[in-house]
Amino acid sequence: MRPLVHFGMLRSFVTAVKHYSVTSQTSDFENTYRHQEAYPYFLPIQTRWQDNDQYGHVNNIVYHGYFDTLINHYLIRYCGLNANRQTSSMVGFIVSCKCSFHAPMMFPQNPLAALGVEKIGRTSVTYRAALFKPCRGRISLPLDYNVLSDGCYSGSPLLAGFETLACTTARSTHVFVDAASEKPKELPEHFRKQLEKILMQPRAANQML
Amino acid sequence: MRPLVHFGMLRSFVTAVKHYSVTSQTSDFENTYRHQEAYPYFLPIQTRWQDNDQYGHVNNIVYHGYFDTLINHYLIRYCGLNANRQTSSMVGFIVSCKCSFHAPMMFPQNPLAALGVEKIGRTSVTYRAALFKPCRGRISLPLDYNVLSDGCYSGSPLLAGFETLACTTARSTHVFVDAASEKPKELPEHFRKQLEKILMQPRAANQML
Amino acid sequence: MRPLVHFGMLRSFVTAVKHYSVTSQTSDFENTYRHQEAYPYFLPIQTRWQDNDQYGHVNNIVYHGYFDTLINHYLIRYCGLNANRQTSSMVGFIVSCKCSFHAPMMFPQNPLAALGVEKIGRTSVTYRAALFKPCRGRISLPLDYNVLSDGCYSGSPLLAGFETLACTTARSTHVFVDAASEKPKELPEHFRKQLEKILMQPRAANQML
Amino acid sequence: MRPLVHFGMLRSFVTAVKHYSVTSQTSDFENTYRHQEAYPYFLPIQTRWQDNDQYGHVNNIVYHGYFDTLINHYLIRYCGLNANRQTSSMVGFIVSCKCSFHAPMMFPQNPLAALGVEKIGRTSVTYRAALFKPCRGRISLPLDYNVLSDGCYSGSPLLAGFETLACTTARSTHVFVDAASEKPKELPEHFRKQLEKILMQPRAANQML
Repeated sequence: MRPLVHFGMLRSFVTAVKHYSVTSQTSDFENTYRHQEAYPYFLPIQTRWQDNDQYGHVNNIVYHGYFDTLINHYLIRYCGLNANRQTSSMVGFIVSCKCSFHAPMMFPQNPLAALGVEKIGRTSVTYRAALFKPCRGRISLPLDYNVLSDGCYSGSPLLAGFETLACTTARSTHVFVDAASEKPKELPEHFRKQLEKILMQPRAANQML
Repeated sequence: MRPLVHFGMLRSFVTAVKHYSVTSQTSDFENTYRHQEAYPYFLPIQTRWQDNDQYGHVNNIVYHGYFDTLINHYLIRYCGLNANRQTSSMVGFIVSCKCSFHAPMMFPQNPLAALGVEKIGRTSVTYRAALFKPCRGRISLPLDYNVLSDGCYSGSPLLAGFETLACTTARSTHVFVDAASEKPKELPEHFRKQLEKILMQPRAANQML
Repeated sequence: MRPLVHFGMLRSFVTAVKHYSVTSQTSDFENTYRHQEAYPYFLPIQTRWQDNDQYGHVNNIVYHGYFDTLINHYLIRYCGLNANRQTSSMVGFIVSCKCSFHAPMMFPQNPLAALGVEKIGRTSVTYRAALFKPCRGRISLPLDYNVLSDGCYSGSPLLAGFETLACTTARSTHVFVDAASEKPKELPEHFRKQLEKILMQPRAANQML
Repeated sequence: MRPLVHFGMLRSFVTAVKHYSVTSQTSDFENTYRHQEAYPYFLPIQTRWQDNDQYGHVNNIVYHGYFDTLINHYLIRYCGLNANRQTSSMVGFIVSCKCSFHAPMMFPQNPLAALGVEKIGRTSVTYRAALFKPCRGRISLPLDYNVLSDGCYSGSPLLAGFETLACTTARSTHVFVDAASEKPKELPEHFRKQLEKILMQPRAANQML
């Protein structure tokens, strides 16, 4: 069977990014966020035909959509967020998001998304996220199908099927408001506790990106 | 844990569609395509946060994207389609597509997409596709993770986790052209054979939609 | 300045579609919907970089998005539809939609979308829509900028900048329900009157597609 | 006629962002990029129905798509970029992008996008972009329709129709590679000159975001 992806372009992208990285100030600090071991929570991502743009790889805006899905999935599934605008008591707004692209990816590759919480404020949450490509060659991974709904945590056998260095990393911040009073809303106790479960290790360095 | 979806709106949509169906000519013939048992090939679909529109359920255009992904996935994975425009010998164009919506669905539900081939012409292929919502309540489904890349066939234990009546049905037609001569291209032997594997039962009635 | 689009692929698509059309039953009836003169209302559409898929032209699912935008734009701007789920009294669901593709198009071309109402039922509306490519060569069109918000009608000087034969045609049906009772809702008088303004000429032939 | 947008949610978002901004280190430096007068080039953006997410305003990932469109539009229209992967000599990859959201926006509002070049390297370009909402109330703006294809520059009468403080600001970096050798490619002379036309004023402060 033919290879599913065209590796020429992958090489070209990696060369370009390396070249760019050498000439810019990508810090050691940021590099720690490229490693699978830095993250507590994972969700497989299924790519779609239309994720690829006319250059034949996943368009940069689509990655933001993967991470948006990853974050909202965790908030709905584990933190009890009611995302229905008619009945919800709390609404989250993204106030900033950033992606860095280290290597390209393309449909029909199905990567693994990783999530961690960098900081929990009184009314806001800052997330770190990353994407890991599947290893070349097939690995048989017997799993419960519910991993698509539940995600999984560090130590899951699923992780073995993916590269350990991220092809994309991201950082974004949510601010939550009360749906009725329209004012910033202190995060509820259960909500905060569930986010603390995926809090990443505190780091000494300046964390403003 | 709270229910993940808001069922009020589901009921409202089903009522609306039933009302509409009674007063229009939805044929028995078309109804056969709503049944899971009519389809040979299946692929799980992972929904995304932004699939929901401002009415809180998956926007109608997103379904076309699920089916486009399902079809291209089968062509790349099993029929040897090279979708890279720089090196491909054959390119497929969708010349028509239609979706009928019987009930709504919403992120974070993960449905099952079904595919069958209705007709294989000399240079064209007509597909039937459908979407089945997950059953309420969790069902533990031990499976190989590769089902996300490989899909599965009739008889797979995965099917038990989904409703048997489709929430959406679709029909679309691909025409293939030679990438160099730019003329309609006779389907290659291997390509045709792989499509015949998921050919649906021939039906007597008029099949033009 | 170089041409903005690659015409080789355009030719290839048109050849494929012609070939396909000859061998299928595209009726004279349907062909009337390819003509600009059949439509009462028009809205310019701005394409986006990511509308193009890896074959380099606008992906078929994106067209459904253009038409969805065209229809909702008319309903909000002229029929008084309140699309805010928290305060709206009436919600519309698409129950079926179909697109036929006659020739491709690509970013950065900006086409013209056309809308007409085929049938107004008690609780439902069936629309016809089409897309017209810009003429080759620049035409200077002095206009009020508000055409982007207001659209325009038959006779507008804007129409002269676009081809008269559609590259894509579509048909879709909306069913409306009461937001509170969740039952099919009779269309309000003002809503119905505004839709009647863009009602297309009645036709004798069977109108079921 | 009813107002097209729901201002309650707008207020709630602005409150949330202000609250967040006070408690974080948004610098005066970054604030200069919120002003219309900082930008040399402008392109109107037409929103779509599906840009709104289930909270009823434009989803954060969609903004990245507006800016991607804005940038590629300028490169194709003015810098001679051939974006066709089969015939292009140079391909651009986004290696990082960041958006900051200061106030929400929603379909059917049509905003104005602004573009400037922050830095031109040997093989890379760093852009600044922003989005300005239309002023409340209609302003009649007689213009050539080609503004949708050509965009416009500082001093255009179009600018008067939009707010002067951005609702969203962004920064992104493109690296270009040779399509054949797959190595970083020095920007061609014409390409560089056209980018210099929209170079923003140099600033003393640290420009790393």
